[in-house]
Amino acid sequence: MKRVHMVVAYDGTKYCGWQVQKNGQTIEGELNRCLTALFGEEIMVIGASRTDAGVHALCNEAVFDMSARMPAEKVSYALNQRLPEDIRVMESKEVDPLYLPRKQNTIKTYQYRITTGEVQIPTERLYTLFLRRNLEEEKMQEAAFYLIGTHDFKSFCNTHTTVESTIRTITDIKVFRKDEILVIEVSGKGFLYNMVRIIAGTLIEVGINRIAPEEVKKMLEAKDRDAAGPTAPPQGLFLYKYEHL
Amino acid sequence: MKRVHMVVAYDGTKYCGWQVQKNGQTIEGELNRCLTALFGEEIMVIGASRTDAGVHALCNEAVFDMSARMPAEKVSYALNQRLPEDIRVMESKEVDPLYLPRKQNTIKTYQYRITTGEVQIPTERLYTLFLRRNLEEEKMQEAAFYLIGTHDFKSFCNTHTTVESTIRTITDIKVFRKDEILVIEVSGKGFLYNMVRIIAGTLIEVGINRIAPEEVKKMLEAKDRDAAGPTAPPQGLFLYKYEHL
Repeated sequence: MKRVHMVVAYDGTKYCGWQVQKNGQTIEGELNRCLTALFGEEIMVIGASRTDAGVHALCNEAVFDMSARMPAEKVSYALNQRLPEDIRVMESKEVDPLYLPRKQNTIKTYQYRITTGEVQIPTERLYTLFLRRNLEEEKMQEAAFYLIGTHDFKSFCNTHTTVESTIRTITDIKVFRKDEILVIEVSGKGFLYNMVRIIAGTLIEVGINRIAPEEVKKMLEAKDRDAAGPTAPPQGLFLYKYEHL
Repeated sequence: MKRVHMVVAYDGTKYCGWQVQKNGQTIEGELNRCLTALFGEEIMVIGASRTDAGVHALCNEAVFDMSARMPAEKVSYALNQRLPEDIRVMESKEVDPLYLPRKQNTIKTYQYRITTGEVQIPTERLYTLFLRRNLEEEKMQEAAFYLIGTHDFKSFCNTHTTVESTIRTITDIKVFRKDEILVIEVSGKGFLYNMVRIIAGTLIEVGINRIAPEEVKKMLEAKDRDAAGPTAPPQGLFLYKYEHL
């Protein structure tokens, strides 16, 4: 028996998110199905981030245990032959049998990508949020500074969640342009349910001048989901980078 | 009666190309169908570039004649309400009743986009060609220089075509990187059937060191399709820019 670690990238467009559900295709479900078929034994992966329906990833992580003799490094190639083309294992390697992705000391970085203009360019539609309004990125960056650090992010958490603590640490937020795309890049040790999308939705409200940057400080203090901005739609969100500390 | 000019962008992934066909959805077919429904009279567009199945466009152009009183500038908005989301009219305006897109004095620019690496990133798969080989872009640029100018491009033309002359003018070819994407940008007054994709396929052969840059000169001189490289697949190709001279 050995534990295999995989880096998994996917186009989340047609999936109901990472986590296996009763109805609907999921990333985790596809990995389990293809690994089970590949090795002829029932395999269930354990993932690092349970991304929502429609969210993309360049670098989610997962482990599973296998008894087959295939070298762990070869798993990515073999598995990619069976996976649908919108899910790809970027690399695979053997890890300690007790390794658990969610227990690692890591910094996760998400990017929320936005395009603006009169009409949406069709080849951008699956991977960016489109807005007909101009965004003032300096104000968005100013507002973002209030969120960096360790805070109670209760206002920035979907209410349909049961976690012991809503205190989290955001290590950095950068707002910048990469060609025609405006990127909100959020890094932290861990995030609450919908937290990055609520941050993006709130910074967009600042960017279109609906609220002032300093309002974000009050939103944090309110500890009330209704105080913060809307949850931005999923197609603009990418799990972008995992740094193991 | 007035003639309306439109700039049309589309994600070509699921279409059988621009031109109406007996079987299969096309961009031209969708425009005709939605314009006819919008104005309640049969409308047929005349396009500028008949892009192939799977090829994308940021700026194809088309005209049509309408008797309805809607201002030409409002057509883009009204039509976008009916079109599938992978086709968008970026702008519309009234033009001279004799204006024909293919008769204009324009420089067309295509981009062919390539990603390289060990495993393809799923969110790039619809809009780039993926290669597991490294590309030497300096050699590709060197080879491209032989193609710039007015030449007989018979070797770079699909043989299933009947044109009077295979002489065309390429005004520029640039090979450059934009972030993680290698771009082959080809500009000219007009192109033969599959010409840009055969140029891309040939420059890729140079980039992976299968042929020397100076071989491209001999390929041109051969005036034989078998002398040039393969036709690169459609998903990497974008009709990128139209300059009216």
